[in-house]
Amino acid sequence: GVAPAVHAQAAVRWRMATSFPKSLETLHGAGVKFAETVKALSGGKFEVSVHAAGELMPAFGIVDALSEDTIEMGLTAAYYYTGKDPAFAFSCAVPFGLTAGQNQAWKEHGNGRKLLNELFAKYNFQTLSALNTGTQMGGWYRKEIKSPADFKGLKMRLGGGVFGESMAKLGVVAQNMPAGEVYQALEKGTLDAVEFVGPYDDEKLGYNKVAKYYYYGAWWEGGADLEFFVNNKALAKLSPENQAIVKAAAAVANQDGTSKYLMLNPVSLKRMVGSGTQLKPFPKAVVEAGFKAAQEVYAEHSAKEPAFKKIYEDLRAFQRDQILWSRISELPFLQTMASVKI
Amino acid sequence: GVAPAVHAQAAVRWRMATSFPKSLETLHGAGVKFAETVKALSGGKFEVSVHAAGELMPAFGIVDALSEDTIEMGLTAAYYYTGKDPAFAFSCAVPFGLTAGQNQAWKEHGNGRKLLNELFAKYNFQTLSALNTGTQMGGWYRKEIKSPADFKGLKMRLGGGVFGESMAKLGVVAQNMPAGEVYQALEKGTLDAVEFVGPYDDEKLGYNKVAKYYYYGAWWEGGADLEFFVNNKALAKLSPENQAIVKAAAAVANQDGTSKYLMLNPVSLKRMVGSGTQLKPFPKAVVEAGFKAAQEVYAEHSAKEPAFKKIYEDLRAFQRDQILWSRISELPFLQTMASVKI
Repeated sequence: GVAPAVHAQAAVRWRMATSFPKSLETLHGAGVKFAETVKALSGGKFEVSVHAAGELMPAFGIVDALSEDTIEMGLTAAYYYTGKDPAFAFSCAVPFGLTAGQNQAWKEHGNGRKLLNELFAKYNFQTLSALNTGTQMGGWYRKEIKSPADFKGLKMRLGGGVFGESMAKLGVVAQNMPAGEVYQALEKGTLDAVEFVGPYDDEKLGYNKVAKYYYYGAWWEGGADLEFFVNNKALAKLSPENQAIVKAAAAVANQDGTSKYLMLNPVSLKRMVGSGTQLKPFPKAVVEAGFKAAQEVYAEHSAKEPAFKKIYEDLRAFQRDQILWSRISELPFLQTMASVKI
Repeated sequence: GVAPAVHAQAAVRWRMATSFPKSLETLHGAGVKFAETVKALSGGKFEVSVHAAGELMPAFGIVDALSEDTIEMGLTAAYYYTGKDPAFAFSCAVPFGLTAGQNQAWKEHGNGRKLLNELFAKYNFQTLSALNTGTQMGGWYRKEIKSPADFKGLKMRLGGGVFGESMAKLGVVAQNMPAGEVYQALEKGTLDAVEFVGPYDDEKLGYNKVAKYYYYGAWWEGGADLEFFVNNKALAKLSPENQAIVKAAAAVANQDGTSKYLMLNPVSLKRMVGSGTQLKPFPKAVVEAGFKAAQEVYAEHSAKEPAFKKIYEDLRAFQRDQILWSRISELPFLQTMASVKI
């Protein structure tokens, strides 16, 4: 007879909580892709169960659960937790920040990941990039935005952190609610506007059915990095092989999810514009008002919080080089491609 | 006593040949990163030895070796092999083609990888992305390029495929030689110009010491995808676990190498400009002449080769959506960031 398979390693089982509904196969889907990859790489000896928002905890309960060591990992956006520390926002997206590619470079080869993990260590976790949304849209509005004054008193669901504070300076009344609760609020008129991600996710959530104007030129998310938040103690307990598996599975999910957005967004966009969505650029004055507000918020936090200042200054030094480089590489290439007829 | 470790799987050893010198820790380095990752993920049961150009075979001998099943994998650029089939170029970079992110989306979620692997199956291999250079520079020139006429008779080392044929239409006398042989040829004046990758690699190879003018606005490589070429029979012989390891290790290398270029390029660029390099944009007429020439080459191949036509048309349909999307996402974001003072 055939000898039974020998498994030298004990089975490992982890739980991952995500901040998203199962229906979002982009965001929640990065967790599913991660789990599938871990299983394949370990020959089934390491399994991760993936739980949508609300299954194990509320959408924004992940950092608390990691701090209390009650869960091995989460999949979420760091800027949901700026109530704990405003510097969390740097790990996801900040106004006039980085693109998807730049974010990856800052984290993998610059000081980004190192500085952020020092901050996250206080909450018992470290991060691995899970997927990047790419440059996001400026959101859905029931009325047109013609000048910065149109933001005054606007009840809007938006991402947190420096961006939320900048919008507050422009008069927006920010509502930090899970994406799944927005449709009803917009329909009832208790919400005037929402920005979530981009065409594919936004269409899934039905925002185009309850708001007419879809703006682009969003200065606040050049590329939002969603991340796996991994409990430090759980990671340290893994064998070196399983630690490598966690990192490699994150890279697989990141490559898959980031490119999936690029594939899906234009298809959704065309469909929505075909059924009545009005696509509009933010006026220049709105972008300028956003820049002024964001710079004030950066200055205020930097004056009060040394940890925020340290990360902010590192980000900007890195970014100045990136802007120099993009001006002679991807930017002119994209401009050329926007001008030729293929 | 402690029981000895039990290894249920036999040891697997593969050899990888790269087209690059060891000194290029970007390009050749992606192979090293891949091998390190395979070893870590398999707990040392699967090892890949990585061999620089010339160690096992000449820089451009990889496809022949894979066809003859004498090697398990290579790390190279598909457009080096357009002598076998002009459609090979689509897997790396073609004029007025895709950016790094778009290339990934076309391959992972569009039809790109599938169509290309059908072509590559005739040579017994399939590909996995190894790293993307991002938008490349337009190369080094001993004399200024003021109009398309300045390309006439220019002896230039450049990437192959549609791009090389387009440049030939403009009068360039193309020299397809390994990057490591270029310095001497430029110094001796048997070569007038070279385009290789971008600031970091170009500085390593010393091109700035033998040519003064460094051009940007290269329409030919919006993002060149270097790839692992994996022998189909060798891959099929692996366990499902080791097959997953090969794929995941490629994703790790890709994330690492693609972002490494973004980190390193601006630093090298500043250093070279500081020591005398003259940075210049291609004149608009040069880009227009390049577009006209490339369109002619695409039309000629499409008329003669159905396989080329099929991939070209799929690429362009995908790309038209990507241009639509980039015009309202990353392009305006990069433009905004080039205009603000951070």
